[in-house]
Amino acid sequence: MRALSPTDSAFLWMETRNQPMHVAGLNIYTPPEGAGPNYVSDLLATWSKYPKALAPFNVRPVLRMGLWYWEEDEEFELDYHLRHLALPRPGRIRELLSLVSRLHGNLLDRNRPLWETYVIEGLPGGRFATYSKIHHALADGITGARMAAAAMCLDETEHKAPAWALPFSQHPASHPRQASAGLLQQLGNAVRAGRDILPGIGSGLWDIVRASYAEGASALPFQAPPTPFNVEISGSRRFAAQSYSLSRIKRIGKLTGATVNDVTLAICAGALRAYLLAQGKLPKKPLVAMVPVSLHGETDAGGNQVSLLLASLATNVADPLKRLERIVKSTSEAKERLTKMPRLQKLAHGITSISPLGAGMVTGSAEKHPLFNLVISNVPGPREPLYLNGAKLDEAYPVSIPTHYLALNITISGYGDHLGFGYIACRRSVPVLQRMLDYTHHAIVDLETALDINKKTAKTVKAGRKTIQKKSSAA
Amino acid sequence: MRALSPTDSAFLWMETRNQPMHVAGLNIYTPPEGAGPNYVSDLLATWSKYPKALAPFNVRPVLRMGLWYWEEDEEFELDYHLRHLALPRPGRIRELLSLVSRLHGNLLDRNRPLWETYVIEGLPGGRFATYSKIHHALADGITGARMAAAAMCLDETEHKAPAWALPFSQHPASHPRQASAGLLQQLGNAVRAGRDILPGIGSGLWDIVRASYAEGASALPFQAPPTPFNVEISGSRRFAAQSYSLSRIKRIGKLTGATVNDVTLAICAGALRAYLLAQGKLPKKPLVAMVPVSLHGETDAGGNQVSLLLASLATNVADPLKRLERIVKSTSEAKERLTKMPRLQKLAHGITSISPLGAGMVTGSAEKHPLFNLVISNVPGPREPLYLNGAKLDEAYPVSIPTHYLALNITISGYGDHLGFGYIACRRSVPVLQRMLDYTHHAIVDLETALDINKKTAKTVKAGRKTIQKKSSAA
Repeated sequence: MRALSPTDSAFLWMETRNQPMHVAGLNIYTPPEGAGPNYVSDLLATWSKYPKALAPFNVRPVLRMGLWYWEEDEEFELDYHLRHLALPRPGRIRELLSLVSRLHGNLLDRNRPLWETYVIEGLPGGRFATYSKIHHALADGITGARMAAAAMCLDETEHKAPAWALPFSQHPASHPRQASAGLLQQLGNAVRAGRDILPGIGSGLWDIVRASYAEGASALPFQAPPTPFNVEISGSRRFAAQSYSLSRIKRIGKLTGATVNDVTLAICAGALRAYLLAQGKLPKKPLVAMVPVSLHGETDAGGNQVSLLLASLATNVADPLKRLERIVKSTSEAKERLTKMPRLQKLAHGITSISPLGAGMVTGSAEKHPLFNLVISNVPGPREPLYLNGAKLDEAYPVSIPTHYLALNITISGYGDHLGFGYIACRRSVPVLQRMLDYTHHAIVDLETALDINKKTAKTVKAGRKTIQKKSSAA
Repeated sequence: MRALSPTDSAFLWMETRNQPMHVAGLNIYTPPEGAGPNYVSDLLATWSKYPKALAPFNVRPVLRMGLWYWEEDEEFELDYHLRHLALPRPGRIRELLSLVSRLHGNLLDRNRPLWETYVIEGLPGGRFATYSKIHHALADGITGARMAAAAMCLDETEHKAPAWALPFSQHPASHPRQASAGLLQQLGNAVRAGRDILPGIGSGLWDIVRASYAEGASALPFQAPPTPFNVEISGSRRFAAQSYSLSRIKRIGKLTGATVNDVTLAICAGALRAYLLAQGKLPKKPLVAMVPVSLHGETDAGGNQVSLLLASLATNVADPLKRLERIVKSTSEAKERLTKMPRLQKLAHGITSISPLGAGMVTGSAEKHPLFNLVISNVPGPREPLYLNGAKLDEAYPVSIPTHYLALNITISGYGDHLGFGYIACRRSVPVLQRMLDYTHHAIVDLETALDINKKTAKTVKAGRKTIQKKSSAA
């Protein structure tokens, strides 16, 4: 039995039926050529040969004298954690997203290790998906998320034990080549990093907020407008997801001198503007996003340091290029301020995302005066194709955590030549979230049109959009 | 906005993530002849033409100044409540029960009307199932359960609006012929009746307990032995279900002079004994069940009055016939004591089941000295075949509520010539619950063997067992 850190415990304490504290990853796979209709059943049968879970997949939280501890679950039951599901007809991505929306709203059972993995069959052409959920409190130094990533292969012919059965020696930590390999690992990093922020809330995060508040900054804290996203949330969720060609986004960046992260923010900004306009709720003042950014070589330590900044999304600007310009200005100013800050204040400890707990604590009950409106994370991912027991990973999406006063979260993760946009929201506060997919698509097209990217080129990149997008739009 | 009664509120207050307070019904259907593979999708498409819910399917609980009220959900979203799912391959009853086990462990979202209906396709031969969940607090006088039943038809060619869209005038209350028609209505009655008990806990229920405690009674309260069923429960569930030919059970009753209810209790007793023996946890003292019973014409009011009694299950007796004998003696004595009680004390208000709340409150934290070990309800059901938009209802099972210190609940409901046994339990406290299905089967066979029902007859009745049983046993 091992005590949880106060921070890990906080994720258990703050969890309610309206605010579950788990993150997840949705992966979509194509089975190897020649795979029969029982491919998924066989995969599950193979996995069920590993009925014993290793740390941290084998611990459950127990409360003793007001403190949380991890203890091994002596009656670990794989059949409970590993779940086989199927999509109803016609088995479109629409049905998959609908299912994930529901699954993400369900609390984990605290009497058991805090994770569930669903293997979902029934997509057209034999494709299948996995939805892996893990509690924020569980993903610590040796994160379950990293272990899940470790179960993926870089080689089509390679077969591995499932994540819960991998001993520590096979963890990414000891295999650097695999360390960059998985979405779930990225998520794990984000999760872990989020926790690192917390002890610094009184100092570090607050310093960033104070710095952003400097005169003339484009995004001023406490100047974020009230939006439908900054309200108390309900327990139901809606998840929407779509992939876009990274080259397409890079081309926009190249023509405008913006970073991929800035273009991504501009795309989100365009989508958010369209969404709020349609709802009749676009504030006059621009939305403010809390964004994790990398500070390449700009810090004392050099390398790929990451910190957080507040960025104006310029949602009050109708012109897509001017909007992008404003965003670039906002993030540049914020980065400049960050580089002037002492290293400790930057919280540059490999942070790739803000912790939902941190965000919730900072925003508090500021429904009328939110500190910022939402978190947008852009998590870099592996470029090489990944395989799960021979099945090719086609698409990968993070499913993050909405919290009170942050009812919408956008997390974007890279895989191959695509960026997967994952929108997760309180289904009640943020209705018809699925329309964000169309708005996202239009936001990209609007930028391309404004940049006069000729039709022929535009067609090429459009064809590069992944299946999930087309199907969802058709739905 | 309408205030909840203190009792209805109690179901909301006492609900925790380990102790959800919803009941459900699992129905299995065969589509009409000639139905195509899109039959279920089409059914859902038809239902989605009724996006507006009527009372009580349109109200959600809100807390104001410490009191619960029902208010109309102005943003009612049918798509959230009505859910399409499919079984993974091979789509056996085993997969269905596994799915229902998981669904029953998930809390309802309190920001919305407290019900969910799942339509589950993928059983062999185009069969499908519905799993309808409703909160105990919602099912009041005009119960949602009764409304669900009202959506069923006695005629294959009849088509009706779905339950949530039926106006009050079409309720069973105003159509007596339909009033007897549904399992869900039975459940609804049980639920409603359960609530009626509560105000009487200080008087009525307690009087029954005191009466059972009379010298010489076979089942003495506070003499129920500690069992694995009388512990605090976790949030995960296991559901097991099976149907048996009612004629087979009646034949046993005829040969022994026992009522169907007594034989049913003896079957449960045999199964419980086998289960506890296999777990190495059979207490020396017999288990005590809380059982709703009918008191035909034995009360001042006459008619079909129902009350509750404590029955010894004689699980310490190895011989099946002697066990049945003891059970008959126990229930007869209890009924005799009941008939001697004043009418009010009998709580004879149409009670068909004990409220889980009542049970929980009475048993308290008596882990070492449980008042009784479990509730076994035998709910009479309709004899005529029922139809849902042309699809024949094959099997119907109640899914009840385990509570702290009552980790296992057995509810049996009749439909046609079959009794559907529904076992619902805390998955952690009551492991391998699915074995109860085999033990139940053996308990019936043991009684038949002891009664020397000849092999030919036995074979006939065995063939009468419904598909669900065979499939589950094979699983």
